[in-house]
Amino acid sequence: MSNTFARRMGTVHRSFIREILKVTANPEIISFAGGLPNPELFPVAAMDTAAHGVFAEIGASALQYSTTEGDAGLRAIIAKRYKDVRGLDVDPDSILVTTGSQQILDLVAKVFIDRGDKIVIERPGYLGAIQAFSLFEPEFVTVSLEPDGPNLDELEAAFRDGAKCFYSVPNFQNPSGVTYSLEKRKAVAALLDKYGVLFVEDDPYGELRFMGEDLPSIYSFCKNPGILCGSFSKIAAPGFRLGWLVTGKEVYDKLVIAKQAADLHTSTVAQSIMRRYLETNDIESHVALIRERYGYQRGVMVEMIKRYFPSEVSIIEPEGGMFLWATMPEGVSSMDLFDVAIKDKVAFVPGRPFYVDGTGENTMRLNFSNSDEGRIEEGIKRLGRSIATFLK
Amino acid sequence: MSNTFARRMGTVHRSFIREILKVTANPEIISFAGGLPNPELFPVAAMDTAAHGVFAEIGASALQYSTTEGDAGLRAIIAKRYKDVRGLDVDPDSILVTTGSQQILDLVAKVFIDRGDKIVIERPGYLGAIQAFSLFEPEFVTVSLEPDGPNLDELEAAFRDGAKCFYSVPNFQNPSGVTYSLEKRKAVAALLDKYGVLFVEDDPYGELRFMGEDLPSIYSFCKNPGILCGSFSKIAAPGFRLGWLVTGKEVYDKLVIAKQAADLHTSTVAQSIMRRYLETNDIESHVALIRERYGYQRGVMVEMIKRYFPSEVSIIEPEGGMFLWATMPEGVSSMDLFDVAIKDKVAFVPGRPFYVDGTGENTMRLNFSNSDEGRIEEGIKRLGRSIATFLK
Repeated sequence: MSNTFARRMGTVHRSFIREILKVTANPEIISFAGGLPNPELFPVAAMDTAAHGVFAEIGASALQYSTTEGDAGLRAIIAKRYKDVRGLDVDPDSILVTTGSQQILDLVAKVFIDRGDKIVIERPGYLGAIQAFSLFEPEFVTVSLEPDGPNLDELEAAFRDGAKCFYSVPNFQNPSGVTYSLEKRKAVAALLDKYGVLFVEDDPYGELRFMGEDLPSIYSFCKNPGILCGSFSKIAAPGFRLGWLVTGKEVYDKLVIAKQAADLHTSTVAQSIMRRYLETNDIESHVALIRERYGYQRGVMVEMIKRYFPSEVSIIEPEGGMFLWATMPEGVSSMDLFDVAIKDKVAFVPGRPFYVDGTGENTMRLNFSNSDEGRIEEGIKRLGRSIATFLK
Repeated sequence: MSNTFARRMGTVHRSFIREILKVTANPEIISFAGGLPNPELFPVAAMDTAAHGVFAEIGASALQYSTTEGDAGLRAIIAKRYKDVRGLDVDPDSILVTTGSQQILDLVAKVFIDRGDKIVIERPGYLGAIQAFSLFEPEFVTVSLEPDGPNLDELEAAFRDGAKCFYSVPNFQNPSGVTYSLEKRKAVAALLDKYGVLFVEDDPYGELRFMGEDLPSIYSFCKNPGILCGSFSKIAAPGFRLGWLVTGKEVYDKLVIAKQAADLHTSTVAQSIMRRYLETNDIESHVALIRERYGYQRGVMVEMIKRYFPSEVSIIEPEGGMFLWATMPEGVSSMDLFDVAIKDKVAFVPGRPFYVDGTGENTMRLNFSNSDEGRIEEGIKRLGRSIATFLK
């Protein structure tokens, strides 16, 4: 039967990370491998009340088919928050509600990528984007991620060479934790406009800043409308599968067509509960709580790494988000280290899957959002021990 | 900017039906155009209780990321219902929960369709499938739908000619209302096995039979595992966007990869509420209620058509489902009739969009699930008047 699969399936595989998560299901293992928000912070009681309110007030409408574009009330709230929180003017009619922000990547790939098109991504890059785009058989062009954003020479070279699209996570990137500086944001926007490259700005973590100043989106500096992506997964809860995008009219219409074909519309139930939750709760103070907790955990992890990791290991200290990136000396394999570490009951994600060019062998991603202080201390101690053994 | 869209976007358009639904939003218009279940039958109070139960019992887990395959408890219930209701043995591990059954069509297209592959569909065919498949640029081959199923000579000719896949809705098909006879089911299965064609059996309406006997799925007659599709949209509520597929191991694994890339997993919230609803309510008596109501409405529509439609119009009397199919004399355009009818404040779906070959000009689809007796009588009267005026 395998000869009947489409050609595109030859190049994609199950998410390596999701496979790792199965190994780490054992509760004795301290896992920094996942990318999960901390469930202790999910607003369970408020969602319960919101759900009851929805069924009591709008009843059957919450259970019926609804528009592909998304709930009008929810889109109005998203637009208002862009204004209030980011100072960004966004027309609710330019917002498309999606089945998680992962779906945006699938829709963008469908609407824009012909086989062989050059798509620029960061090196290391977000695995979900690599997976979604790969199914449409682009040629990936990668640009180095430096501590303040992409290498601009590489980026311009890629654009000059006919890139169609640049996919970027400018705030607390997954996996690296890197945040683009203000200067690089402006420079990237100027290059995008100069070369007419489609920009996809993915921003699931932007509101989770623990230190430093919020920076404007690159979207806000661009003359040509790109696609700005947002998500409720990190500021409320991922189990709803609710994301959204903002874009210009022409692109919007094409994405709506692709979404109709993909799943008709995003769950009416999920959208209705989220809308009511937002209408009846103070999401801003909830986000502040998440920032405080994750910021604390991030601080513990950085401190413990300095205490327990061999000095040959360098890290990028993130200003927000959920991930910390570590680099071991050249020639050291984090894939091999993983096998050693798992015996000491600690897990992380080896960096190589984030590099489409097969490099990144000596890197790793550590998640700090989903472990408390005690587990972070113990886990980093174990991992430091594994690395030290391994380096010998 | 339009020159940057992918080639595949040139062949697809917004759903004509969804555009019609905007015209019919006016409550003065009696609309037989939609494909909506009757919201009066949605189990609102039971879903409210189920949602509260979920938040009280599993709390944060219902809001977290979850597996791509879907909730294990929900899959067990789906498998049990296949056994209890259909007498079909289905392994829960062969079930993939999807974001509505529309998503299955997108995933199947991704996993199987290379540009130019021959995909066999019914004529008329389900619009959602035509849309989802079109994005992957197949060559559609259509087979005539007769009152007892597809024309077998045409089907064999298409299979012999190298068809890769046959997509079919054997129970109360959308749009035609046609149900395959037992003989044709067996014959189709034999042809599928003989030619090694992938079978996608879409069955959203199978449980909504008002008269006659339930017939086994074609899937149950096939030696090679195809893909059997199901949905909660018509037996519970569509607003959850919950569907599922059943298939063999090799195909399953590929579909899981495609689903990971599409939206990671189906909404945990939606799956948890549906599971609890099914665990704590008698879905079988709920489905019996839907069958009774729709069956009554279908009877009224058939009777009123016989009373008010000109005799030149022929119909297929469906044994279940949500749709009734009418054919006017050759040369009469239901697109033109639509403009006349809408002035008399009654709407339907012209049949042409269901024909990829551009025929079907003289056909129309009428929905009976979402109008009560009074509106069906008045609407069919108006439509009969419009047709009579038009035929003159």
